[in-house]
Amino acid sequence: MTQSSEVAVVTRLAELAAIGRHSAGISRPLATAQERAARELFATWARADGYALTQDRVGNLFARRAGTFEDAAPILVGSHLDTVQTGGPYDGAYGVVGALCALALLDSRRAATAHPVEAVAWVGEEGSRFPFGCLGSSVFAGLMDVDAALALVDDAGTSLRAALAAPDGGLLREVTSRVGTRAAAYLELHIEQGPLLERAGIPLGVVTAIVAQRRYQVIIEGTSGHAGTVPMDQRRDALCAASELILVLEAVAKSAGDSVVTVGRIAVEPNGTNVIPARVTFSIDARSPDERRIDAIEQAFQATSLDVQRQRGVRVTMERLESRAAVPMDPILRQALCRAVESLGEHPLEIPSGAGHDAMCLASIAPSAMLLVPSIGGRSHVADERTADADLKLGVAALAASILEVDRSLHAK
Amino acid sequence: MTQSSEVAVVTRLAELAAIGRHSAGISRPLATAQERAARELFATWARADGYALTQDRVGNLFARRAGTFEDAAPILVGSHLDTVQTGGPYDGAYGVVGALCALALLDSRRAATAHPVEAVAWVGEEGSRFPFGCLGSSVFAGLMDVDAALALVDDAGTSLRAALAAPDGGLLREVTSRVGTRAAAYLELHIEQGPLLERAGIPLGVVTAIVAQRRYQVIIEGTSGHAGTVPMDQRRDALCAASELILVLEAVAKSAGDSVVTVGRIAVEPNGTNVIPARVTFSIDARSPDERRIDAIEQAFQATSLDVQRQRGVRVTMERLESRAAVPMDPILRQALCRAVESLGEHPLEIPSGAGHDAMCLASIAPSAMLLVPSIGGRSHVADERTADADLKLGVAALAASILEVDRSLHAK
Repeated sequence: MTQSSEVAVVTRLAELAAIGRHSAGISRPLATAQERAARELFATWARADGYALTQDRVGNLFARRAGTFEDAAPILVGSHLDTVQTGGPYDGAYGVVGALCALALLDSRRAATAHPVEAVAWVGEEGSRFPFGCLGSSVFAGLMDVDAALALVDDAGTSLRAALAAPDGGLLREVTSRVGTRAAAYLELHIEQGPLLERAGIPLGVVTAIVAQRRYQVIIEGTSGHAGTVPMDQRRDALCAASELILVLEAVAKSAGDSVVTVGRIAVEPNGTNVIPARVTFSIDARSPDERRIDAIEQAFQATSLDVQRQRGVRVTMERLESRAAVPMDPILRQALCRAVESLGEHPLEIPSGAGHDAMCLASIAPSAMLLVPSIGGRSHVADERTADADLKLGVAALAASILEVDRSLHAK
Repeated sequence: MTQSSEVAVVTRLAELAAIGRHSAGISRPLATAQERAARELFATWARADGYALTQDRVGNLFARRAGTFEDAAPILVGSHLDTVQTGGPYDGAYGVVGALCALALLDSRRAATAHPVEAVAWVGEEGSRFPFGCLGSSVFAGLMDVDAALALVDDAGTSLRAALAAPDGGLLREVTSRVGTRAAAYLELHIEQGPLLERAGIPLGVVTAIVAQRRYQVIIEGTSGHAGTVPMDQRRDALCAASELILVLEAVAKSAGDSVVTVGRIAVEPNGTNVIPARVTFSIDARSPDERRIDAIEQAFQATSLDVQRQRGVRVTMERLESRAAVPMDPILRQALCRAVESLGEHPLEIPSGAGHDAMCLASIAPSAMLLVPSIGGRSHVADERTADADLKLGVAALAASILEVDRSLHAK
């Protein structure tokens, strides 16, 4: 690497952002030509930087920097290269490119580690193309069987197995096969995707836990009717009932503290300007570092549902689609990351991550921790997702320092 | 007509309901094969009953029963044969078939009228296929230029002119062309489409006025964001803002009395389960016999919008798409209809019509009035739109009696 490793993170991210760019953002769904081109670029950089490259059966890529003790389990450092349909340049990409740049920074300082360190590009974190999030890290951590993963099919009926065998979107050719899934620790550098660091004016965050998340579907069945002829006191309007429930969810989430509830998706039937809504379906996404708070939100919703059903004569049903426990980050690693941040003259903000990450999966097989940098306006999963260049560079420096601190803390155990 | 005219209304409506029937209801959009088949059936019945048939340039059909004074302007009695996409058997159809049956009932009683009486089938009342409601009656009443009407295009780009020239869906062949648009009076028999008659246990209603109607589009612009990472107090959630406004509209409409407000259609962007809604668009349909009540509802909405904008940091814009004044029915004709109903031993319920009808257009060129029969459960524009057979028959008897009363009242003027 000829330029400084911190500068490289900015130029490499710009190069990566050109892959899959379209008018509304960046799109690199798993096992498409765009996403494969991103993996190819990672491989090119890793080889240029002198790291040994391996690839596993689902396409996860590992760029290895040797340790003093080559037989020790590696410290893994990574994130993902796929994006949502209209994604931005940094979600996932920053953690992958940042990992490579952190290794190069250690090289430039001739800093040795006891453990080998591998920069990792996990595949399919976004649930892009195939209906399963954190796909690569789930398979690596043994949370999902590799053959089950390869049997997943996309909307067009193509299996992941077939997609990874195709020249477009498939596995990289002539890359050594990965053997083993040992890990001494896992670190992930990511954009915050929220406004807390920016609001606090602090450039580096250390994640306390990835929050618990539950997803629900609510169905409200009312009675349709002509918009002109049914008096207000005779109506069973499903959208008015939904509006009441949506506002209750908002109020309960606000009062619960530290928790967020989002109704992001709604469908009204028949959805005609002159027809009273007969049926409304909406989603609930509830997250909190403390699952008991989600329990309380759920109970408050159920209680209000009963009132709404009685008062409005509608039927409300709520189905829990998904429930994910909170994943606390490893306390010893968190301390190591805080020391690393302080070694750069910064004070870390310790905050939960409201977004899910590959670190959730890795935490099941190795001590794991995460570093965050600010998102401008707290925005992500959008074309104008941005982080200041200075923060991108600082994050790489913090990651390199964290690798050294973690290597030492593991050694000391 | 061999069977009694009141029984005929039931059997003829059943025959008509078979045209355009599909799994979710009845569909007879203007100038399609189905709608033309309905017009053809009307012509067949009219010829069989011995009435002279004429057709105008947009396809309105007139079946004429001679009057004592053939030079007098005719009393028109009618409704429409087209339906919404998933319509029922009676909306419009009942008024057309009922008009023919009322004429036959007068024949069977050898009841003469001074004015000729014409049963009319207006085309395109529902705005079906071509984007204009009350099309046939608007053209007849001179509210819309016939060439402008023929220049209307459907979603596929086909003009009404082309559709009416095609064998499928076009004008009936070999029917005498209608000359003139004089009318001494207009009567329309219709299902109520609401629950008032049923609730009152009264089988016949006389319309006081067709209510004023306004349609609006509301756009709420908030800020998108990740459902997990943006704290509740940092959000500008467009759907929460919309929910608040929808509930205010409902409350204001309830307190305004005699008025109805419906939010029937809503679109959320980006409408993802894990994304805070950035933008919501919804429709408002507001109706009242008194336009000042709609003014008050609009003002209350605007005031709440300002609060919501200030408190939630969203932008709310409201655009008025359509404004239709209330159309009072002719007082002398209303009295005539009430006398006719009483002559059958019933007490009429005098109520406004929340739905629009061809009578709105005819009222601009002739004294107009409407008779209503109960809708079971107040339902219409749906497959299971129903009216009891006894009420269908009673409505025809009331219409025949009304024709005689109106003929007398016009004569007396």
